[in-house]
Amino acid sequence: MAYELYYWDGLQGRGEFIRLALEEAAADYIDVARQSDGMAAMMRFLKSRTEPHIPFAPPFLKDGDLIVSHVANILLYLGPKLGLAPQDESLRFVANGLQLTITDFVAEVHDTHHPLSTNAYYEDQKEAAKHRSADFIEHRIPKFLGYFERVLKQNPAGSGHAVGGSLTYVDLSLFQVFEGLRYAFPRATRKLAKDYPAVAAVHDMVQKRPNISRYLESDRRLDFNESGIFRHYPELDQDA
Amino acid sequence: MAYELYYWDGLQGRGEFIRLALEEAAADYIDVARQSDGMAAMMRFLKSRTEPHIPFAPPFLKDGDLIVSHVANILLYLGPKLGLAPQDESLRFVANGLQLTITDFVAEVHDTHHPLSTNAYYEDQKEAAKHRSADFIEHRIPKFLGYFERVLKQNPAGSGHAVGGSLTYVDLSLFQVFEGLRYAFPRATRKLAKDYPAVAAVHDMVQKRPNISRYLESDRRLDFNESGIFRHYPELDQDA
Repeated sequence: MAYELYYWDGLQGRGEFIRLALEEAAADYIDVARQSDGMAAMMRFLKSRTEPHIPFAPPFLKDGDLIVSHVANILLYLGPKLGLAPQDESLRFVANGLQLTITDFVAEVHDTHHPLSTNAYYEDQKEAAKHRSADFIEHRIPKFLGYFERVLKQNPAGSGHAVGGSLTYVDLSLFQVFEGLRYAFPRATRKLAKDYPAVAAVHDMVQKRPNISRYLESDRRLDFNESGIFRHYPELDQDA
Repeated sequence: MAYELYYWDGLQGRGEFIRLALEEAAADYIDVARQSDGMAAMMRFLKSRTEPHIPFAPPFLKDGDLIVSHVANILLYLGPKLGLAPQDESLRFVANGLQLTITDFVAEVHDTHHPLSTNAYYEDQKEAAKHRSADFIEHRIPKFLGYFERVLKQNPAGSGHAVGGSLTYVDLSLFQVFEGLRYAFPRATRKLAKDYPAVAAVHDMVQKRPNISRYLESDRRLDFNESGIFRHYPELDQDA
């Protein structure tokens, strides 16, 4: 039975971390909200008063009767099934810890354009967004990418992967973060590949994987846009 | 061998969610940073250039050679060992999803007093904090607690627990969130127990558990304070 992925149509957003794993593994899945009546199906789960285990928000994955929500949790669930988790049981906790660091980083990316309220328009919190973005560029990008650079260098498998000796969903997510940062902050990230060569190498390795490369060329991969997590607002980027 | 918990001394913070689980289970653990030289030991892991699997930030748990980081990941790891996870394998993904919703909520609580930068003082982002807190009180508390209220009511085990038919770490975390909200926003939360009776019932049930109740009376339970996640700044609370 095909996995059912539920996420907002029209944007990459948090759903993209799941799509990359499903696409790399050439898994059978339905991107439900992109089907006709799919949005209504998604909303039925979110608003259900009878479903035993309701998700708080998209993305969520339905596999048979089980609904799994939150990106890191979905990847934890899918990883072993898709061959994208470490074989070693303890390393799965390491992978999950790394993915949760990515989760936190992604939440901070979101808050660069919505620092005061997710319920208000960007335009109504632009000044605060400038402050938060400047801080994000100066402090948070170096802190997070510097951390992943160390993680990659200190991986005892020494394989150019975030954890263990082969590709995991964490590598796929690092690709997406690297892409997204360069889209959102093109000026601030000009030297990103030079400053974080190990992270950049993971990005390039993932991009070249046959299934990922086919996916990126396909209609299924939407472009980044200003509805997603990574948004390009020139006024939030570093000065030219 | 005792579990080693690493978290900042002097505050409950994110470490408290782990402490509550260890205390409920009467597990053998060392709260490392509260020992002499403990802070130095914690910093050695955070700054290590040789450790194979470094944490991004506290809290992290050391069990033998394994380092597990992030609250939800630590609870995922400890849950089955402490008898605080569902027996059913699929329900463990449900529990993890609920815990990750709590993680997101806790991050939003933090951002009520630090909406622009974690590197700057609260005093330097007070105006933005007022905006964010007002939004948090109006929109986010109802959204999150309303969700957990539904989760509790729709739990097919109908047991007054967040997931399955018995106590899990998710219930313990809900207790802490409820306590923290009432500490930080006493005026806005005056009617919290009335508005969210099922969440309030979990809070009261947890508070009365013998091991938790002994812990709360002990010196090991620090008071809430303005170094933690839940901070009481009267100017951020609802108007009197």
